[in-house]
Amino acid sequence: MRTAAYSGDQSITISTAEPRQPGPGEVQIAVAFTGLCGTDLHILHGSMDARVSMPLVFGHEMSGRVSALGSGVDGWQVGDAVTVMPLKWDGTCAACLAGHSHICQNLEFVGIDSPGSLQELWTVPADLLVALPEGLSLEHGALAEPVAVAVHDVRRSELVAGDHVVVIGGGPIGVLIATVARHEGAEVVVIETEATRRARIESLGFTTIDPRDIDQEAWVTEWTNGTGADVVFEVSGAAGAVLGCTSLAKVRGTVVIVAIHPVPREINLQRVFWRELRLLGARVYDRSDVERAVELLAEGVIPADELTTEIVPLESTREAFTSLENGAAMKVLVAVGGER
Amino acid sequence: MRTAAYSGDQSITISTAEPRQPGPGEVQIAVAFTGLCGTDLHILHGSMDARVSMPLVFGHEMSGRVSALGSGVDGWQVGDAVTVMPLKWDGTCAACLAGHSHICQNLEFVGIDSPGSLQELWTVPADLLVALPEGLSLEHGALAEPVAVAVHDVRRSELVAGDHVVVIGGGPIGVLIATVARHEGAEVVVIETEATRRARIESLGFTTIDPRDIDQEAWVTEWTNGTGADVVFEVSGAAGAVLGCTSLAKVRGTVVIVAIHPVPREINLQRVFWRELRLLGARVYDRSDVERAVELLAEGVIPADELTTEIVPLESTREAFTSLENGAAMKVLVAVGGER
Repeated sequence: MRTAAYSGDQSITISTAEPRQPGPGEVQIAVAFTGLCGTDLHILHGSMDARVSMPLVFGHEMSGRVSALGSGVDGWQVGDAVTVMPLKWDGTCAACLAGHSHICQNLEFVGIDSPGSLQELWTVPADLLVALPEGLSLEHGALAEPVAVAVHDVRRSELVAGDHVVVIGGGPIGVLIATVARHEGAEVVVIETEATRRARIESLGFTTIDPRDIDQEAWVTEWTNGTGADVVFEVSGAAGAVLGCTSLAKVRGTVVIVAIHPVPREINLQRVFWRELRLLGARVYDRSDVERAVELLAEGVIPADELTTEIVPLESTREAFTSLENGAAMKVLVAVGGER
Repeated sequence: MRTAAYSGDQSITISTAEPRQPGPGEVQIAVAFTGLCGTDLHILHGSMDARVSMPLVFGHEMSGRVSALGSGVDGWQVGDAVTVMPLKWDGTCAACLAGHSHICQNLEFVGIDSPGSLQELWTVPADLLVALPEGLSLEHGALAEPVAVAVHDVRRSELVAGDHVVVIGGGPIGVLIATVARHEGAEVVVIETEATRRARIESLGFTTIDPRDIDQEAWVTEWTNGTGADVVFEVSGAAGAVLGCTSLAKVRGTVVIVAIHPVPREINLQRVFWRELRLLGARVYDRSDVERAVELLAEGVIPADELTTEIVPLESTREAFTSLENGAAMKVLVAVGGER
């Protein structure tokens, strides 16, 4: 079978390899599509070299069909359409025992800490599978993981219908958060500097702001009749966004930190104090979030076609990353197995 | 009557003035004691010149006895022992309407935005009074306001009995937070760099750490058996404390921002994200917090005598601030009226 692996120095190697047969409790999946995300880009750029083993067959957003069952696996059949929740927790640390196993202190992220789905036949523990319903295409099903991130982030924010919500950063996760928040009944504005992205987001029915042209704080204050936003999602990863985000939230409002900030950021703690704000970190998802994501995809709530700006064959994985690097692309899928 | 006023240029002027008679709905209080706090020190140092009108009779931590009643005041008698909750809200802004009137968007802080209690006869709206019970000395009662801050901060943290709690900064508010948290059943450690303060805090039965001598993160990790602290209170106002505080908290742990940080601070958002931390701003108190503070003082839970390092006459108000500036003092009271 063919694989695509990060092999250091910003390069990707396409190889052939023997597929691993499923052991007890495992299943093998014929991968259909693998989505590429910001974390994969971080890996490609070498930012996570201290964490990953090279060559790394990466990829963790996917869809496919069960192709073989290991011993002792119940409830799945060859041919079942599935996605994978790529998290393995130890079940014994304090976080797991407290019920937060999705952020286990020793979490293994499959596709980062172990081989991922940029391979035609991928073997994983059966308990990571989540069923994709009939009628949901494998192309759309491949978005389950990033949609689960958005479902988790919105759930963590505790927003309710009628809330005014600001999403800072209009990449795929930002747009998915905006979509899920709107589906929950929130009024949503997306702050994004990139014009192509703004146009695409507006075509999905959202209001957008370019913070370089508009005083975002004044705009949000007027939009909320002087109150401030109920919830602000920081999804941009930009230092300036962190410094400005606290000024957008109302008294006792919530700021959710979704983006990865690899270095310390300056934040306006005076505003956190003055308005008794709540800042929440939000990371990955649990099984219920993935299941809800699959439902939202199946119900057509997620504009999957509009968000998928490119589908490329496995051999073009490196070129697909170049589209992501250019900033205008949204979701790029690799057609690993090619089923459409 | 005599008054002490901030008159600019780090100076305090002692004057005599005609007391203001109580109007409808107001009471006049014969002030016994006024405590000096960090905010008063900020005023003295000129940091709040843009906000305050000079000369400002300041002071907002106090005790005294009702000396005169304006028309229409029910429920109070001349001679009643009282303290004052120095907050006036507008009742009409979004924060008030949402039930957060203590952090009203147009909050008037009495003693900062209007005259305070460094005067022998102080006239305030009757609805700001909180009764002090028989048996609670006016010296101890003067601590009600800072104790209410601590009660509010602990309530905001949602800590429960058995929690491991770190208090960063062992000034009066830090020690009061530690005391209230311990009374709620928490295990508490106080991080403080000043040796005199550490000794005083240890004499109250608390464990302390000097973060310059001990690796605070390793210490807390070991103390919590690898888990991390349930709650961290940032009370120091120091940049280094902010940068380090997130590393002390457990997965889904809480960091409460109590201190005033006049400039943006660097914070480790990667840790906020990774452990799904919750950062909460906590500011002032509401009436229930003040009433609870009075109860804790009356029950002897608060080590009021140990925390009160100096009591000076009104004429020595400037010298009392010098003690605060030197850093080793805890609570300094001004005996405005002199009743003990």
